[in-house]
Amino acid sequence: MQKVLTVAVVGYGYWGPNIVRNFSAVELITSIFVCDINRDALRCAKKNYPAINLTTDFHEILSSPEIDAVAIVTPVFTHYELAKKALENGKHIFVEKPFTSSVAQAEELIELAERKNLKIMVDHTFLFTGAVRKIRELIDEGLLGDLYYYDSMRVNLGLFQHDVNVIWDLAPHDLSIMDYIIDEKPEAISANGRPHFGNSLEDVAFLTVFFNNNIIAHFNVNWLSPVKVRTTLIGGEKKMVVWNDLDADEKIRVYDKGVKVMNREGIYNLLVSYRSGDIWSPKIQETEALRVEAEYFVDCILNDRKPINDGHAGLRVVKMMEASTESLRNEGRPVRLAT
Amino acid sequence: MQKVLTVAVVGYGYWGPNIVRNFSAVELITSIFVCDINRDALRCAKKNYPAINLTTDFHEILSSPEIDAVAIVTPVFTHYELAKKALENGKHIFVEKPFTSSVAQAEELIELAERKNLKIMVDHTFLFTGAVRKIRELIDEGLLGDLYYYDSMRVNLGLFQHDVNVIWDLAPHDLSIMDYIIDEKPEAISANGRPHFGNSLEDVAFLTVFFNNNIIAHFNVNWLSPVKVRTTLIGGEKKMVVWNDLDADEKIRVYDKGVKVMNREGIYNLLVSYRSGDIWSPKIQETEALRVEAEYFVDCILNDRKPINDGHAGLRVVKMMEASTESLRNEGRPVRLAT
Amino acid sequence: MQKVLTVAVVGYGYWGPNIVRNFSAVELITSIFVCDINRDALRCAKKNYPAINLTTDFHEILSSPEIDAVAIVTPVFTHYELAKKALENGKHIFVEKPFTSSVAQAEELIELAERKNLKIMVDHTFLFTGAVRKIRELIDEGLLGDLYYYDSMRVNLGLFQHDVNVIWDLAPHDLSIMDYIIDEKPEAISANGRPHFGNSLEDVAFLTVFFNNNIIAHFNVNWLSPVKVRTTLIGGEKKMVVWNDLDADEKIRVYDKGVKVMNREGIYNLLVSYRSGDIWSPKIQETEALRVEAEYFVDCILNDRKPINDGHAGLRVVKMMEASTESLRNEGRPVRLAT
Amino acid sequence: MQKVLTVAVVGYGYWGPNIVRNFSAVELITSIFVCDINRDALRCAKKNYPAINLTTDFHEILSSPEIDAVAIVTPVFTHYELAKKALENGKHIFVEKPFTSSVAQAEELIELAERKNLKIMVDHTFLFTGAVRKIRELIDEGLLGDLYYYDSMRVNLGLFQHDVNVIWDLAPHDLSIMDYIIDEKPEAISANGRPHFGNSLEDVAFLTVFFNNNIIAHFNVNWLSPVKVRTTLIGGEKKMVVWNDLDADEKIRVYDKGVKVMNREGIYNLLVSYRSGDIWSPKIQETEALRVEAEYFVDCILNDRKPINDGHAGLRVVKMMEASTESLRNEGRPVRLAT
Repeated sequence: MQKVLTVAVVGYGYWGPNIVRNFSAVELITSIFVCDINRDALRCAKKNYPAINLTTDFHEILSSPEIDAVAIVTPVFTHYELAKKALENGKHIFVEKPFTSSVAQAEELIELAERKNLKIMVDHTFLFTGAVRKIRELIDEGLLGDLYYYDSMRVNLGLFQHDVNVIWDLAPHDLSIMDYIIDEKPEAISANGRPHFGNSLEDVAFLTVFFNNNIIAHFNVNWLSPVKVRTTLIGGEKKMVVWNDLDADEKIRVYDKGVKVMNREGIYNLLVSYRSGDIWSPKIQETEALRVEAEYFVDCILNDRKPINDGHAGLRVVKMMEASTESLRNEGRPVRLAT
Repeated sequence: MQKVLTVAVVGYGYWGPNIVRNFSAVELITSIFVCDINRDALRCAKKNYPAINLTTDFHEILSSPEIDAVAIVTPVFTHYELAKKALENGKHIFVEKPFTSSVAQAEELIELAERKNLKIMVDHTFLFTGAVRKIRELIDEGLLGDLYYYDSMRVNLGLFQHDVNVIWDLAPHDLSIMDYIIDEKPEAISANGRPHFGNSLEDVAFLTVFFNNNIIAHFNVNWLSPVKVRTTLIGGEKKMVVWNDLDADEKIRVYDKGVKVMNREGIYNLLVSYRSGDIWSPKIQETEALRVEAEYFVDCILNDRKPINDGHAGLRVVKMMEASTESLRNEGRPVRLAT
Repeated sequence: MQKVLTVAVVGYGYWGPNIVRNFSAVELITSIFVCDINRDALRCAKKNYPAINLTTDFHEILSSPEIDAVAIVTPVFTHYELAKKALENGKHIFVEKPFTSSVAQAEELIELAERKNLKIMVDHTFLFTGAVRKIRELIDEGLLGDLYYYDSMRVNLGLFQHDVNVIWDLAPHDLSIMDYIIDEKPEAISANGRPHFGNSLEDVAFLTVFFNNNIIAHFNVNWLSPVKVRTTLIGGEKKMVVWNDLDADEKIRVYDKGVKVMNREGIYNLLVSYRSGDIWSPKIQETEALRVEAEYFVDCILNDRKPINDGHAGLRVVKMMEASTESLRNEGRPVRLAT
Repeated sequence: MQKVLTVAVVGYGYWGPNIVRNFSAVELITSIFVCDINRDALRCAKKNYPAINLTTDFHEILSSPEIDAVAIVTPVFTHYELAKKALENGKHIFVEKPFTSSVAQAEELIELAERKNLKIMVDHTFLFTGAVRKIRELIDEGLLGDLYYYDSMRVNLGLFQHDVNVIWDLAPHDLSIMDYIIDEKPEAISANGRPHFGNSLEDVAFLTVFFNNNIIAHFNVNWLSPVKVRTTLIGGEKKMVVWNDLDADEKIRVYDKGVKVMNREGIYNLLVSYRSGDIWSPKIQETEALRVEAEYFVDCILNDRKPINDGHAGLRVVKMMEASTESLRNEGRPVRLAT
C-alpha cells in the first residue's frame, strides 16, 4: 500500500491558500497541485510555495494518475460537478462546506464514493478545534448530564456573499458542530430571516432545530451586526457551558450551575432550586484546526478509516440547510427532516 | 378638578413593594392603600410605610370613594377580573404587564375605560428608562436611518414562573420596547421553544416578529442560561446600536458602522462596501424608571393626557403574546397579526 | 457571664448606617444606642430603626453602665480621643479604619485595652468578604506556592475627602488585606503622589511595600480615574490569582500559570519555560462582610477571643500609613518600618 | 540630491524581520542589505525576501558606498558601538529602542551625527500608532485641558530577557509615548521593583516620573502577570482618556468626566462636584505603525527633516532609564533628572 500522497487543490481564492498551507505542512503529502482558472491566483500560490505544480485545467488533475486526492475549495454550486468527476476518476475528495447545494447531490456522491471505495471528507473545520473537541469531551464524560439546549450566535459586519444567503454562509459551521456535539437526531427545522439590500439573499436569519427529546438548538446568524459575536451557550442538566470563540484565553467556561425541580404535583407546587458553584476554564489545545484536519484526512486515506466528517456528516448538514431554505420561504413554518 | 390623588395598590408580592415605594415618592399622591390577602405582606408594607392604609378585602378598595386609581400588581390571570371591577367602580387603573391573558379581555377593558372616561396605564416600565428613551430619541432624530432589525437576548438562570412560560414572563418587556421603538406595524409572528421540567411551560424560547418592510425583530428568552445577558442589537441603515442593560457605565453604544451596496446589476456585480467609524456612548438619564412612570401616571390622570403605555399599547403586546402562543404550539408556524 | 450585648454606635454619617443595620441583625446584640451631634442624622436613624436609643451626648454613652461596647464611626482624627474615653470607661471598642492618625495613638490604645482587659476591633471589613477569605484559604492550602508580588489598583472618580489624602482614604483597605494575606513582615515603604486641586491632599498616589524575601506589594490609589477599577493581581510560584472585586460572578480567578527557570549558569543560559493551564473561579461566599464581622465582634467579646483584626492589626496598618506619609513628602524615598 | 535609498539592517533576530518587511514595502528604498552573524537567520531572510543582499560582516556594510542608512536591531548593549561606526562611515542610523545603554553614549552619538550632518532615528514605534497619534491630537486640540496624570500598566507572562530587567525591556515603550504626549519636562524619577529568579534582574517593577506642575506619570511593568494588560489612563482637567491597546475595536475611549472644585477656603469648605457625560471612541487609523515609521525615516533623510523620534528623543528616554536604575537600587529614592 502507498505510504505517501499527492493532493490537488482546486480553487485558490479566499480559503484555498489556508488549505495549501496546511497540506504543505503534512509530511505524508509529498506533492501538491493547485488548479485555478485565475492565473494571478496561481502566480501568487507559486510565489508562496515554489514546489507546487500549477494548472488552469481541471481535466489535467482528473487525468493525472499520480494524484490521489482532490480538495475542492470552490463556491458551493460547483461542488457536486467537481466532486463527481474527481470520484469518477478514482480520487478521494476533501470538499469545502457546505458539502453540496442539495440533498440529492450529496446522496449521489456518497453512493458513488462507496461504490468506488473512495473517501469523502467535508471540511467541517471547527470539529478539529480545541474548543469543540473539549466540549465533546465534557459531554462524553457525562459532566453536563442530559442536554437541554444549544444556542449559538455568529454575527458581525460582512462578509456579504453574492450567491448564498447568511444561513448558507454561516450556519454550516454551527450545524456541523451541533451535529458532532449532540448525539440525538434532529426532527424538524424552523427558519426565518430577511434581506435588506434589494436582492433576495437574507442577511439576518434565525434557525431553530428541534429534537425528539426536547433538546432545542438555535442559531442566530447576521451579516449586519456592529459587533462581532461568536458565542454558544450549552445548557445541561448538571452543568452549563459558555463557549466564546473570540476570547483568546478562556474560550470555554464550564458553569457549575443548574436548576433542580423538587416537586411536580401541580403547577403551584413546582419547587425550583438553583445551584451556583465554581466556574472552570479548561486549557484548550491550540494547534490550528485545519492542520489537525489535514493530518486526519491523510490518515483516513492511508489507513482506510471512516472520517467523523465524512459524506454522511456533510449530508446531515445539507439536509438541515435544505429544510431551512424551505422554512425560510414560509416565515418559520417547521419542516420535518426525513429519516 | 382634583389636584391630588389617592391610589390603591393591589398585590404586595415581588413587584408591589417597588410600586408602593415609587408611588410614595410622588408628591401628588397623598394617600396610599395596600390590598393583599396575605397578612404578612401587609405587615411588611406597614413596617416600611407606616402611613399607608391596609386591607385584605378588594371590595373595600372598590367601594372607597376617596380612591381615585388602582394599581393591579397581581399574577396575569387575575388582571382582567380586578381591572374590570376597578373600572366599573370608576377607578383609573395601572396594570402590571402583560396587560391581560387574552386579546378579548384587553379589548373589553379598553372599551370599558373609554366609555367611563378612565385611564388605563400598563406598566411597561422599560419605556421610562433612560436607555430606551435615548434609543427612541436617536431614531426620532434620524440618526440610525431606516431600521433593518431588532435583536434582543434576555437570558439568565431563573426566575421560574409557575403559571406562565418564559415568553409570557420575559418577552412582554422586549415586545413593549419594540412597540415603542419601531413605528411600523408587525405583521406576523413565529415562535418556538421547549420545556425541560416535566410541566408544559417552555423555559427556552425564540420569537420572531415580521414587519411589512423587511424589518425583522427577534427575541431570545431563556430561564436556563448560566450567564445573565440583557443585550439588544439594533441595525440601521446609517448607524447601529448595541444596548447592554447590564453595563453600568455604557448601556448604549452607537456604532458609526454600515454597509453600502453600490451596484445591483446581477448577483455577481453586487459591490458591498463597509463603513466603520467612531463609537459613541451617550450619557443616559439615571432616574429610576418606575419613579418617572409613577409621576407620569399621575400627570395623565390629573391633566387628562393619553399615556404612551395606555390600554392600546398593552393590547398590542398581548396580541403578539397570543399569536406567539399559537405559533409555539406549532413549532414556529407563522401566525398573522390581525389588524 | 453575660450572654447578650448592648452596643453604642458613635457617628451616623456615611458608614454609620451600615454599622447600625448589621449590628441590628445580630441576635446577641439586644440593644443599640446611636450618638451623633447632628440631630437630623439621629432622626433618620430612628425612622429606620424605631427601637434604638438616641443621644447627642457622648458622655451619656460613656457613663451608661448598660453599654458594653462602643463602635466609633467618625473621622479618623477623632478616633483616638473617643476610643480612649470609651476604654477608660470600660467599653470594648470597634473602630473604623484606619485605626488612628498615628502609631503613638494606636500603641497607647492597645496598651490601655490590654490593661483593662477590653477588646479592640478595627473595622477591616474586607477581611470578612468571601473573596479575601478564599484567597487566604488558597494560600494556606499552598496552592499558590511562594508569593512573588501583590499588586492592587483601587481607582475611580471621587469620593474626595476633606481631611485626608487618597492614601489615607483608600489604602487602609488594601494594606489591611495585604497584612492578612501575606504572613511576612513588611520592611520598608516607598510612596509618591500628587495633589491637583490647590490643597495639599494627594488625589493620585502609588505605594510600594517591600518585604524581606523579595515579595513586593504595590498599591495604585486614585480619586481622579474615569473608570472604576478594583483589581488585585497576586503572583505565586505555582499559581496566580486575579481578584476583580467588581465582577459579580467571578471575583476570583486562579490561573494555573507560571514560569520555570531551568538553568542559572550565567545570564545567557537562563532558560525560562512558561506554563499555562486551566483557569478556575471558585464560588465565593456572598454573605455581607459587615454582617459576618458584627457577629465576630460579639463572639470575640462574649467568648474572650482575640480578633484577627485587633488593635495590633490596626497598628500595623497605621505604621504603614505613617511611613507612607513620610515617604510621600520625599517623593518616594524609602522609609524603614521599625520592628 | 539622491531620490532613493539603500538601507542595511543589522540584526535579524526577533524584531529584525519586522523591520525588513516594512522597509521592503517602502517604494523609495530600492535596495536592502541584511547583516547577521547567524547564517540561519540570513538564510531565513533570503527565503522571504529573495531580492535582499546578505552579509555576516558588519564592515562590509560600513565600507559599502551605496548604503545610505543602517538600521541597528541588535541587543541594547551593542547599539553604541554599531551606531558610532555607522555614523563615522557616513550612514544615517535607525536604532532599536532603547537608544543606548547610557546617557553618555547617547550624547556622543548625537554630537557625532550633528557634526556629520546625519540623521538619527530611534525606533519609538508606538509614536506611529493610530492610538498614540489620536491621543496627541486630542491633547493638541485642548480637549483634555491641563493634564493631571498618566498611568500605564504593561504586564503579561514573559518574555523574560537575559540581559536587561523588566524596566529596560518594557518601559522604553511607555516613556517614549509619555515623552511624546506630555510637553512638560520631567524633573525626577522614583523606581522600585524586585527580582524573583535568582539573578538580579527585576521582573516586577514600578516607576514614577514627577513633573514640575504636579503632573505625575506612573508605569507598572511586570513579566509575571497571569493576564495581559496594556492599559493607560490619562487624567485631564476637562476630559479623561482610557487607552486599552488590547481592545481591537475601541482602543481609545474619551470620558467626559471630571471634578470641579468650587471653593477653596479651608479644607472643610472644599466643595467638589463631579461631571459625568458621554463616552466617545474615536476611529483609530489602522496602518501598521512600523510601516508609517519606515516611510517617515526615508522622508526625513531625503528631505532633511528632523524626526520627532530623533537622537534627542532617544536620549530623553535613556536619561529616565538611567535614573530609574539608580532609584531602583535605592528602593525608590527619587533621582533628579539633570537638565
